[in-house]
Amino acid sequence: MIKVAIIGGAGYTGGELLKILLFHPKVAIIGVTSKSHSGKKVSEIHPNLNHLTDLIFEKENIAELSQKADVMFFALPAGESMKKIKDVDLSKTKVIDLSADFRFWDKNTFEETYQIKHFAPDVITKCAYGLSEVNKNKIKQSSVIANPGCFPTAAILGLYPLAKEKMLTNLVIINGVTGSSGSGVKPTERTHHPERAHDFKAYNIFSHHHSPEIKQSIDLLQGLNSSIAFVPHSAPIIRGIFITAYVTLPFEEKIEKIKALYQETYKDKPFIRLVDNARISSVVGSNFCDIAVYAQKNQIVITTAIDNLIKGASGQAVQNMNIIFELPETTGLLFAGLHP
Amino acid sequence: MIKVAIIGGAGYTGGELLKILLFHPKVAIIGVTSKSHSGKKVSEIHPNLNHLTDLIFEKENIAELSQKADVMFFALPAGESMKKIKDVDLSKTKVIDLSADFRFWDKNTFEETYQIKHFAPDVITKCAYGLSEVNKNKIKQSSVIANPGCFPTAAILGLYPLAKEKMLTNLVIINGVTGSSGSGVKPTERTHHPERAHDFKAYNIFSHHHSPEIKQSIDLLQGLNSSIAFVPHSAPIIRGIFITAYVTLPFEEKIEKIKALYQETYKDKPFIRLVDNARISSVVGSNFCDIAVYAQKNQIVITTAIDNLIKGASGQAVQNMNIIFELPETTGLLFAGLHP
Amino acid sequence: MIKVAIIGGAGYTGGELLKILLFHPKVAIIGVTSKSHSGKKVSEIHPNLNHLTDLIFEKENIAELSQKADVMFFALPAGESMKKIKDVDLSKTKVIDLSADFRFWDKNTFEETYQIKHFAPDVITKCAYGLSEVNKNKIKQSSVIANPGCFPTAAILGLYPLAKEKMLTNLVIINGVTGSSGSGVKPTERTHHPERAHDFKAYNIFSHHHSPEIKQSIDLLQGLNSSIAFVPHSAPIIRGIFITAYVTLPFEEKIEKIKALYQETYKDKPFIRLVDNARISSVVGSNFCDIAVYAQKNQIVITTAIDNLIKGASGQAVQNMNIIFELPETTGLLFAGLHP
Amino acid sequence: MIKVAIIGGAGYTGGELLKILLFHPKVAIIGVTSKSHSGKKVSEIHPNLNHLTDLIFEKENIAELSQKADVMFFALPAGESMKKIKDVDLSKTKVIDLSADFRFWDKNTFEETYQIKHFAPDVITKCAYGLSEVNKNKIKQSSVIANPGCFPTAAILGLYPLAKEKMLTNLVIINGVTGSSGSGVKPTERTHHPERAHDFKAYNIFSHHHSPEIKQSIDLLQGLNSSIAFVPHSAPIIRGIFITAYVTLPFEEKIEKIKALYQETYKDKPFIRLVDNARISSVVGSNFCDIAVYAQKNQIVITTAIDNLIKGASGQAVQNMNIIFELPETTGLLFAGLHP
Repeated sequence: MIKVAIIGGAGYTGGELLKILLFHPKVAIIGVTSKSHSGKKVSEIHPNLNHLTDLIFEKENIAELSQKADVMFFALPAGESMKKIKDVDLSKTKVIDLSADFRFWDKNTFEETYQIKHFAPDVITKCAYGLSEVNKNKIKQSSVIANPGCFPTAAILGLYPLAKEKMLTNLVIINGVTGSSGSGVKPTERTHHPERAHDFKAYNIFSHHHSPEIKQSIDLLQGLNSSIAFVPHSAPIIRGIFITAYVTLPFEEKIEKIKALYQETYKDKPFIRLVDNARISSVVGSNFCDIAVYAQKNQIVITTAIDNLIKGASGQAVQNMNIIFELPETTGLLFAGLHP
Repeated sequence: MIKVAIIGGAGYTGGELLKILLFHPKVAIIGVTSKSHSGKKVSEIHPNLNHLTDLIFEKENIAELSQKADVMFFALPAGESMKKIKDVDLSKTKVIDLSADFRFWDKNTFEETYQIKHFAPDVITKCAYGLSEVNKNKIKQSSVIANPGCFPTAAILGLYPLAKEKMLTNLVIINGVTGSSGSGVKPTERTHHPERAHDFKAYNIFSHHHSPEIKQSIDLLQGLNSSIAFVPHSAPIIRGIFITAYVTLPFEEKIEKIKALYQETYKDKPFIRLVDNARISSVVGSNFCDIAVYAQKNQIVITTAIDNLIKGASGQAVQNMNIIFELPETTGLLFAGLHP
Repeated sequence: MIKVAIIGGAGYTGGELLKILLFHPKVAIIGVTSKSHSGKKVSEIHPNLNHLTDLIFEKENIAELSQKADVMFFALPAGESMKKIKDVDLSKTKVIDLSADFRFWDKNTFEETYQIKHFAPDVITKCAYGLSEVNKNKIKQSSVIANPGCFPTAAILGLYPLAKEKMLTNLVIINGVTGSSGSGVKPTERTHHPERAHDFKAYNIFSHHHSPEIKQSIDLLQGLNSSIAFVPHSAPIIRGIFITAYVTLPFEEKIEKIKALYQETYKDKPFIRLVDNARISSVVGSNFCDIAVYAQKNQIVITTAIDNLIKGASGQAVQNMNIIFELPETTGLLFAGLHP
Repeated sequence: MIKVAIIGGAGYTGGELLKILLFHPKVAIIGVTSKSHSGKKVSEIHPNLNHLTDLIFEKENIAELSQKADVMFFALPAGESMKKIKDVDLSKTKVIDLSADFRFWDKNTFEETYQIKHFAPDVITKCAYGLSEVNKNKIKQSSVIANPGCFPTAAILGLYPLAKEKMLTNLVIINGVTGSSGSGVKPTERTHHPERAHDFKAYNIFSHHHSPEIKQSIDLLQGLNSSIAFVPHSAPIIRGIFITAYVTLPFEEKIEKIKALYQETYKDKPFIRLVDNARISSVVGSNFCDIAVYAQKNQIVITTAIDNLIKGASGQAVQNMNIIFELPETTGLLFAGLHP
């Protein structure tokens, strides 16, 4: 059994990690921490886990857990993991970090984007960007996995087949939509029910911190400085990321050819489903990423739907753990979404 | 024109007061205050009022505004009005208070219910409980109006015809449901979108502070110590109070007789609509209170629907102002709800 | 492996049966039928099952499937199962019927309630009412299981400990709230998004067809003609049943005693969780039934929350299958709900 | 008083016309028709109008009403108005048609888009496209007003300042989001609550019938064949259209200059609000159109929010009536939205 510790288990991604790992056939959870809830039963904070676990939140004893754990999931706010990772013996214990701290190969981009000084630039070289379908080999070999953001996961998976063929030479428009759980467990004006439940709006236009993360991947895949415009929107749903990407190809292409490219790219990827119409309610509660492709002359539209807490966070984190420990990627992750 | 000041105009009931009073044909708003937003444009906080008013929030200068105002609306958290009302010259200026501070004729009940010491017990004797349809004469003659709570408004209006006939001699079950706007503008765990949007639950069972408020009215109407059980629930709607009241009559009664009693009671009340089926979406955005009555032998079920921010707060407050200033009750209040 | 056929697999309960049974470790699905979708892939109708099954809907060949199946789930509209069950060899194949057709031991009650003539009164004697926690022994021995309705499941489980002690001697008020998925896959005015999404209302007051179903169970448990008043409401949620039951005990009782009774009653029941506060969002996506109990003198309030499609339909159906085939009740059913 | 008849008053746009016109100070409603509900009280179908009107739905007697009416609003399904308009004496009675029948100056575009043969091509020459802010003079002079679609209203108002300056020379991406009320009063799979309430998806990609309508206006404003890509999405809200338009200018431009252009263009337009952030919940329930503009080098993003049933349909129709009858545009239309 893989011995797993979860650092920061009281938030939404922590809860989702627990929900998945408790039923993972190759995992034993050896500890789960919470600064503000240590001593409480896990099921007190995550009522859906009541009767499914007797785990108690521990205080944040990273060094100690690191001695016992094969892998540690860090589910902490931005800027925390890079301070705490020094307590982990990385020669022995893998870290899968769900924050943005290690997602950028260039620490300057991180510092500009998050306006936080980077405390562990040395760790960056040991990291793989944990987009499972794109980066499998590097994930396997790295001791720290920087699990991607929710918008980047959906956006890059939607664009990857075109990017690897270097077809994104013109400006790519990425229109993103998110549910409220992406904002985390802490109540704010943005997630106040009376302000959110009947609303739809754009936010952080030209300035969302997921924009450089998306661009970094597209740039690397294409080997050039690409041009993207990403506008996130908040919708009155709890779970879900929906991306509508608009690509202008440098030449006209038949939809059949584009679809064949997507099929070829993703033929061995169990969590990518190429569908006629992507929709949030087909993927909520699952680790699937649904992708639909449309073309008209040289215009391509790609729509992508994921559950932000699963494929966009904790599910993909477990998928990366499976990759690291050479299990089938689907181990413990083949469950259906909640439709309706 | 009636000169009106609003004390505490930045919350949801404050916004609703502004929305109504800006279009009231007999009102001039002479000032609106906000402690935390003074100096800001009203439309910055209430974006729906953009282009409809140039008002600026003032600081909380109650004494000064009192010199100019014919009537002041207090839309403040519990415990504030009773401290501040001393700055108003009540011989000259009426106060319509939307908080619970003056709703109880017995200060002990207030103190037990809200666990706050009452600072202005002397004012209580000058107060009318502002349930417009029930208490019109007293409202006309009083200098301070204690505007009812949202649950009590719906519950008492639903039960009033039976109560005034002293027919509530057995236990009355009052099952209440509320939208999230009733919790106010401040984000909390209870109104966090991910926690609320797909949820339904009961809360404060046997202990909600609206329970003694309802009981007080039923007791006074019947002239006896009545027995009620009130259980509030939170639903994933923004606006609306829905009450399902279960009454066991001391004798069997024909539904036609019961309906006739309701019709007779409310025949001159423009905001009470006796309907076949009450529903939230018929009243949201309006000052109407929809009531439906059902009977089976001696069992009566009454359902009542209101918009908590309008008939359950600011609309009724303006209705009380109309009563005080001897305008038709409907002045400035005859607008339709938002269906669908 | 238990060979399972599903008759009527294209609706919401059919989809949920598939979702559960596809991952059940002791089940092989040998066929799933749909009159209107035969020939189509199951995942075309249930997009959440895409990549999880290659099953194709067959036409409604009940007799043929009966020859191969150990158990057949009927997920059909009211009145259909009783016509079609004659095609099943009940000496060989168990039937778990999700409709109301076999829920009443007295066919007259069925006929009055559903206004349909009963076509198979002889089958009734072979039936068990499939409330797993209450009726386990009879379920084990019967060839046809009448799976309970969603409201009755939640209501009776909430009241069972009191009923078996014959403590429901006074009128019991049962206030029920349902999500929209309970109305099924066919669009109607009641489930039209613009009419439902911001609404809350009562419906079928004193006349809902689940009322006699609840009463039948309470009567049998108490051995007397009990008195209940059941009022269902529709809320703008997709999944979930929430019951608030109001009981007046014949005597005053300490809350500790009541809670002890509930704990004792349900101590070996893995899907009953006695909680401080029941809420829909703790159970959605799971087979759990959460129950909370409150008391004040001789007034008891019981709140109960279930997922209507799982514990209120397909999950309980599989739980009954487990009972029949002498598997642990939890086999294939221990999954967590989707919180948030 | 302007004598008004409404043809097709039982749908959502019909209801909204009634809601507005009943309170319009210069209007007398002389008749409202409904094929399926003639004889019923208007408030039976539109429960929010209960106690606000005694109108009864008449049968569809267009010729007769035409003799008395100064203006007739047609709120009918696509293809109906063009058949029925012949019964109106257009020399005497104005028609404001809310359908698409007369929106295209080229009947071929209509026929291709809607796959319906055009029955009244002669009427097209008498029509004005009723986008109030853009086409005021022509609206004043025409006898038939083709009221714009909801997506086109929001999209064109968002792009108009750039289009009239011929700055849309590159491909314009128009990402649209709609609430469920836009689909009308008839339940369908797309607006079935269990399918809609937690979902978000794109639909009719490259093929929505509002696409040619938007393109026609942009082409006319620029005097050239422009290039747009419009992708509509459905969100789980009832009311609202939200447009995010992505424009690549042929040259770099300062945001201040762009904003000044918008301010200049709309300075006398009472229903256009230039805001920092457009959001649905600021406009729902009002006739306002909120527009926000963002720029980064030569990339412009414009977001636009309207209430689809008001500014996107019935409100704009009344605004056009005000223009025709030389009333201030705001007459009867200055009401605030419902926030929260």
